[in-house]
Amino acid sequence: MSINKSDIIYADNNATTPIDPDVYKEMKPYLQERYGNPNSLHIKGREAKQAIEEAREKVASLINADTKEIIFTSCATESNNQAIKGIVNKTDKKGHIITTKTEHKSIINPIKHLEREGHEVTYLNVDKNGYVNPQELKKAIKENTILVSIHYANNEIGTIQPIKKLAKTTPKDIPFHTDAAQIPGKIDINVKNLEIDLLTINGHKMYGPKGIGALWINKKTKIQPLLHGGGQENNRRSGTENVPYIVGFGKAAEKAKESLKKEQKKLTEMHEKILTQIPQKIENTKINGPQKNRLPGNANISFKGIEGEALVLRLEDKGIMASTGSACASETLEPSHVLIETGVPEELAHSSLRISFGRFNEMQDVEKIIETLPEEVKKLRSISAV
Amino acid sequence: MSINKSDIIYADNNATTPIDPDVYKEMKPYLQERYGNPNSLHIKGREAKQAIEEAREKVASLINADTKEIIFTSCATESNNQAIKGIVNKTDKKGHIITTKTEHKSIINPIKHLEREGHEVTYLNVDKNGYVNPQELKKAIKENTILVSIHYANNEIGTIQPIKKLAKTTPKDIPFHTDAAQIPGKIDINVKNLEIDLLTINGHKMYGPKGIGALWINKKTKIQPLLHGGGQENNRRSGTENVPYIVGFGKAAEKAKESLKKEQKKLTEMHEKILTQIPQKIENTKINGPQKNRLPGNANISFKGIEGEALVLRLEDKGIMASTGSACASETLEPSHVLIETGVPEELAHSSLRISFGRFNEMQDVEKIIETLPEEVKKLRSISAV
Repeated sequence: MSINKSDIIYADNNATTPIDPDVYKEMKPYLQERYGNPNSLHIKGREAKQAIEEAREKVASLINADTKEIIFTSCATESNNQAIKGIVNKTDKKGHIITTKTEHKSIINPIKHLEREGHEVTYLNVDKNGYVNPQELKKAIKENTILVSIHYANNEIGTIQPIKKLAKTTPKDIPFHTDAAQIPGKIDINVKNLEIDLLTINGHKMYGPKGIGALWINKKTKIQPLLHGGGQENNRRSGTENVPYIVGFGKAAEKAKESLKKEQKKLTEMHEKILTQIPQKIENTKINGPQKNRLPGNANISFKGIEGEALVLRLEDKGIMASTGSACASETLEPSHVLIETGVPEELAHSSLRISFGRFNEMQDVEKIIETLPEEVKKLRSISAV
Repeated sequence: MSINKSDIIYADNNATTPIDPDVYKEMKPYLQERYGNPNSLHIKGREAKQAIEEAREKVASLINADTKEIIFTSCATESNNQAIKGIVNKTDKKGHIITTKTEHKSIINPIKHLEREGHEVTYLNVDKNGYVNPQELKKAIKENTILVSIHYANNEIGTIQPIKKLAKTTPKDIPFHTDAAQIPGKIDINVKNLEIDLLTINGHKMYGPKGIGALWINKKTKIQPLLHGGGQENNRRSGTENVPYIVGFGKAAEKAKESLKKEQKKLTEMHEKILTQIPQKIENTKINGPQKNRLPGNANISFKGIEGEALVLRLEDKGIMASTGSACASETLEPSHVLIETGVPEELAHSSLRISFGRFNEMQDVEKIIETLPEEVKKLRSISAV
């Protein structure tokens, strides 16, 4: 059942990343002898509390935030729900929310929920490369707009939104949230420079564990907590803190910051090699998302005439782990809403493959994929031709 | 800074427990080579998915539930918020909620939040041993009652509520929730026999990790999800699953079930020894909570004339980790609301010490505490006399 890392090429890093061994090392004592509840008065509690605060400083430093502006959550989905519902549910009044048609489900679905409850929503269109037009955002803003939430980079097609421009377009009194789960270690984030109010990141997209996230909340911004209870996280997120994962997240943030430039360059070279060579080697392909300036490490290509799922399984047989799109949507048979919204025809949307590289990939992985893909696509096309 | 387990007597198991080495062993592969996102199509995803479902069976088995009735959450606080808000927010209508005055803050505070939003709440009184009277519950039920939430056992004073009787008293169409976080491994839970609808448990009170919980939802009961997103947990709790902790929680549940009788007996002997001998050795003490049939391993005693916090710190110097009450309330200077509601005078409530034993305590720990306490109490009393 177990597949060792050495046996496989893991190219699904936009879905989740392995835990960095340095991160795991830092977590271990807190999974063993440092088991105290950080709310306890005694030394076992105090050592846990201190570890949390040290990790918070590292996470804050990653995005140039003030330490007090960071709350830890259990995942990006919680951070997104907290940001959206935490702003919208501050009052009883129904308001107007602006988002885009190509958000992750953890943005779209909380907003659809609020829409069912009577709020008004504008879902902004994107262009063929996935970009939101600041002018369209400007036109969408109304008297009663209470929240704008636009993702930083698209997890499927790698589009990096002009967040600063979009935030500047938004009046200062309307909270601006961005889901930046895919960003750390790939693009520099400086919240002091972005004119935004809330930002989501999480552990497992940056070589930390699955089950820990953070929400940055501008100190001027008030939210209604999603979880009420013991008053942890400065009364903004109750619940006994997940000390080992918070410690791991801190270490992951530290490494993401340190290795940014190096990994940004490496990952960009990797996806560019895929996006340049695959269309040369395989006919009838379509690159999804922008050709230039995309999320480092992300490639998304449609191969006319095949099923993406079938290709993922064939690649798995060759030891290559990839995906058709967002992991969170992999159980439905629907084509990717992101591809559809960028104007990809349904048939081509069904034939897409997402390859996403990370810290532990080497250029030879890229070469192996470039070598393997043409034959697998050919085989699948010959079957579908029958 | 680090204190090894061997150096100390950890007697704060109602706040949190160490991770059992067998649990950690089971988690380790999922913190290392088995890092897949359970929503991914490929083998790394499928092996993670399978691990989750195996763990779900173990957690279900612990409480004799059907596997599909279990959803994993990030902690008991989330489970409690999910249960309460998930029932109450199903409709727009304001209703009436019944709870008790001695719940954990993760019950009281979500309910207070709903009260501020316009719902009506009855907070039931408890008697001097912390018990809720089923007759009082019966009298409190109204036409518009939409939820009853009563804890299974009190984390501070060890009162075990007559849950089955209370649930039977509640009309079948009113959902009955119980926070049973303190119960696994100490009292047998059989949800098929309790006539309840929702039940909260979590990992870190049963030698699993901090940051994982579960909510059992009777298959007839519908809830509104707290977290909307990718549709994980059968659309009831979105977010990438915390695979390592879910696996650990499963193992912890398996061990809790296996070791129930043995540990129940051991822990009961431990708290009974404390509750019998301490009042013999130290005058002006008051046992808080029931003398008989209390939560195995829990002892709570007030020592007239001293501050509980000061005693906790003196005991820490002697290598004994205890608490004044709930860890989640340890930062406030308020006396325990549980003690106040059971009629303990404020001064005595300030002088309380909670000692809570667990799997890794031995009878010699109990003896050491019995040997240490009289002198420490004496010293503190002599200071306060000055």
